[in-house]
Amino acid sequence: MGQAEAVEKAKKVKFVIFDIHGILTDNTLFYAQDGVKSEAFCLNDQVGIKALMDSGVGVSFLTSKVSRDVEQMAKIYGVPPDMLWGSSAKMARLDEFEKQSGLKDDDICYVGDEMIDLGIMKRVFFSVAPADGSSEARAIADLVTMVGGGKGVARELAQFILEAQGRWETFVAQYH
Amino acid sequence: MGQAEAVEKAKKVKFVIFDIHGILTDNTLFYAQDGVKSEAFCLNDQVGIKALMDSGVGVSFLTSKVSRDVEQMAKIYGVPPDMLWGSSAKMARLDEFEKQSGLKDDDICYVGDEMIDLGIMKRVFFSVAPADGSSEARAIADLVTMVGGGKGVARELAQFILEAQGRWETFVAQYH
Amino acid sequence: MGQAEAVEKAKKVKFVIFDIHGILTDNTLFYAQDGVKSEAFCLNDQVGIKALMDSGVGVSFLTSKVSRDVEQMAKIYGVPPDMLWGSSAKMARLDEFEKQSGLKDDDICYVGDEMIDLGIMKRVFFSVAPADGSSEARAIADLVTMVGGGKGVARELAQFILEAQGRWETFVAQYH
Amino acid sequence: MGQAEAVEKAKKVKFVIFDIHGILTDNTLFYAQDGVKSEAFCLNDQVGIKALMDSGVGVSFLTSKVSRDVEQMAKIYGVPPDMLWGSSAKMARLDEFEKQSGLKDDDICYVGDEMIDLGIMKRVFFSVAPADGSSEARAIADLVTMVGGGKGVARELAQFILEAQGRWETFVAQYH
Repeated sequence: MGQAEAVEKAKKVKFVIFDIHGILTDNTLFYAQDGVKSEAFCLNDQVGIKALMDSGVGVSFLTSKVSRDVEQMAKIYGVPPDMLWGSSAKMARLDEFEKQSGLKDDDICYVGDEMIDLGIMKRVFFSVAPADGSSEARAIADLVTMVGGGKGVARELAQFILEAQGRWETFVAQYH
Repeated sequence: MGQAEAVEKAKKVKFVIFDIHGILTDNTLFYAQDGVKSEAFCLNDQVGIKALMDSGVGVSFLTSKVSRDVEQMAKIYGVPPDMLWGSSAKMARLDEFEKQSGLKDDDICYVGDEMIDLGIMKRVFFSVAPADGSSEARAIADLVTMVGGGKGVARELAQFILEAQGRWETFVAQYH
Repeated sequence: MGQAEAVEKAKKVKFVIFDIHGILTDNTLFYAQDGVKSEAFCLNDQVGIKALMDSGVGVSFLTSKVSRDVEQMAKIYGVPPDMLWGSSAKMARLDEFEKQSGLKDDDICYVGDEMIDLGIMKRVFFSVAPADGSSEARAIADLVTMVGGGKGVARELAQFILEAQGRWETFVAQYH
Repeated sequence: MGQAEAVEKAKKVKFVIFDIHGILTDNTLFYAQDGVKSEAFCLNDQVGIKALMDSGVGVSFLTSKVSRDVEQMAKIYGVPPDMLWGSSAKMARLDEFEKQSGLKDDDICYVGDEMIDLGIMKRVFFSVAPADGSSEARAIADLVTMVGGGKGVARELAQFILEAQGRWETFVAQYH
């Protein structure tokens, strides 16, 4: 898909759903000897998520199971607790959200990187994969970001969407 | 060894044994001040291991000593506890497994990266080393993966083996 | 801005304020399952900070909130506790410091990487961004370091400033 | 210095002293919120250190202060506790060792990366710096390794020294 088409799609986005592993992280899992898991997130994504929400574009995080590290990270990123979705039935979770919110597939951007994301990427209007996503995800994505997972995907995508919508300059202006 | 020969060998693989350090990790050991060790694994390998097992190819992990972090990681990857082998006598462990399972060296793929893996790599039918394995391991490997240890070796190898066996498309299809 | 102009500005620097995230770290946040956060610092920066202070250039670290990890790191780097500034009102903190110290904007170098740093970067005499800072920060910086955040920004900048001031050789000489 | 001269020097090495930070690590310090520090080591170095010791070349680690993480790592690497030297007075520690062991500067290889290592690097017969060592250390080193700190410096150097001494093949042979 061409960049011009991706821009056209980005113009219509009202809500962005981020898969967590491979998108907000680079898929690395750190395991300590005592069995405690850690993951690495990127603080730059905080700016992207704030930019989307300040501009009226909704944001949620979708992962199969929510653990404390993901909760802490969501708090840092400013994502409200009810937008932190823990479900391995990703399609069903999306159905439920659309019923509650009145949003449709056409309003939604989904960011995913692996096999399990293919169905939902094909369903929503605008699908995005990171530079280091699986070849399967990149093949069907409307947009592949320049950065890889955990290196600022949300920040890059926020700028892409908000520039398409003519809202990025306004967001940046408040800092100048 | 040429790629074509590696494909021929991959066709016959019934069981894959992964060394852990340098294969499922990049050989980095994190040590905390209080002596607790951590290691970094790659979630993408979960897909590769699932693909192998779903397609009827057995999988085990072989490391000199099993600690809690490795147990947790094996659980995430879906490898059954009895397939998590902790032994520094790698050859003897393989002998034992072959006796129990009825499998032969000719059915087995071994993935290793260091000196200690050379003997077993030469013994089994199909030997694999990661892109950043030692020069000694890469020199004798039937296949060197494009990615380095801890960056998706199991995922890449699973696709290689299952494409050779004509089973990869079937695995991917369920996600489309 | 040209390198020559950056050197001229560096000659006049009496005090350097380092933003922490993205400057002394690469913006990665590690979260453990139990909610504990970690961050990665670079020991080479210790040399840069020592070089500045030994040469009579003051140093402070400015971050929105000071946590234990930042305190430990500041201790390693030799930055005095009262120079570890925790405030999200960065401008107000700078006003207060200037009143106390008698230093002016013209004496100060600020190192930042994100939107929130733009105002203070435009205010002080000499502004610096790391190689992997946001495009907005790099666009207005007087100097962009060759290394990225968490990879020795303070060490590189210290050498740049002290070479401009003719003091680097003296610092290095004590080790030969 | 040319490679040929480095080989000549390597032939005479009887003992190797490794600085720890920046050599066995890449100088990254991980700090947790609760103040606990971690560091990242490379398992490949275990092979290098074993190769040196098996071949009769002594090994010690020298760092300003020994903490639990360094003790654990030394155990993994097989370095005896009395060869784990914690002293910020590096020169004095070397004097003491030479007196005890009967070894001279001419027998010793030192591997360092920063300002603090320059004196000892100039004193011993064969000095080594990693690929990402400071420009000051690399400038005076007899050999700069191809890999950076924490990425297998000890393994690469062991092979360099033992190949120069004609002992590498013997070490590798036991694994074939």
